[in-house]
Amino acid sequence: MSNCIFCKIVAGTIPATKLYEDDDVLAFMDIGPIVKGHVLVIPKTHTETIGQTPPETLAKVIAVVRRMARAQQAGLGADGINIHQSNGAAAGQVVPHIHFHVIPRFKHDGHHWNWTAQSYADPSEVAALADRIKAALD
Amino acid sequence: MSNCIFCKIVAGTIPATKLYEDDDVLAFMDIGPIVKGHVLVIPKTHTETIGQTPPETLAKVIAVVRRMARAQQAGLGADGINIHQSNGAAAGQVVPHIHFHVIPRFKHDGHHWNWTAQSYADPSEVAALADRIKAALD
Repeated sequence: MSNCIFCKIVAGTIPATKLYEDDDVLAFMDIGPIVKGHVLVIPKTHTETIGQTPPETLAKVIAVVRRMARAQQAGLGADGINIHQSNGAAAGQVVPHIHFHVIPRFKHDGHHWNWTAQSYADPSEVAALADRIKAALD
Repeated sequence: MSNCIFCKIVAGTIPATKLYEDDDVLAFMDIGPIVKGHVLVIPKTHTETIGQTPPETLAKVIAVVRRMARAQQAGLGADGINIHQSNGAAAGQVVPHIHFHVIPRFKHDGHHWNWTAQSYADPSEVAALADRIKAALD
């Protein structure tokens, strides 16, 4: 897509520190890292969200995500890895070209996810939501 | 693994609200949702992290993650979706059986990721980290 920053990185018209690429997938350094060493993995063909991306493309992307996670552990000595992926502005997606964040984590890296688990009022509330999801499965 | 809560859900010895399963993958409702409708997708065979999970298994898992995201949008009317996956205690992993969180997001759901982007001191800092990651790629 002509006005997409990640398509421009794929095309080489915007610079990036590339880590890996093949015909379908590109991995490069995120310039605004949550933790230093933070990597982005994208399919070269433009799609916006995971739901719009073909499963066979996702299979290639997740294989590179896995390799990046392994290399962050082996090469940076990361104690853990977060994979994060946002679809839609409501989810925090800023660049509308699907991307997987691969974030190296260290015991004292100072980052904490605000993971506030809610609870369901009763089993029927869970069951009702599950029924709506199941009915919509394609 | 005999003491793994997710293996027990796979085996049916601990109850869960299941959404989908096949020979390799199980999707079920997270009982501590970040946003109500939050789903977990796991491979049935026990591995702990993304780096330990075979790419062919990840391909099957990410295809189900995609279907769950689509169903949350179609069935729950989600405005967006977050995919989140934690490897290792340093990354916030609590259950040591690989799992993908699929979280429906709504414009006013009240959740905000604490996404504090850092910056690199200079291009050489990025390049040095990139070199260490590239050297460790398998």
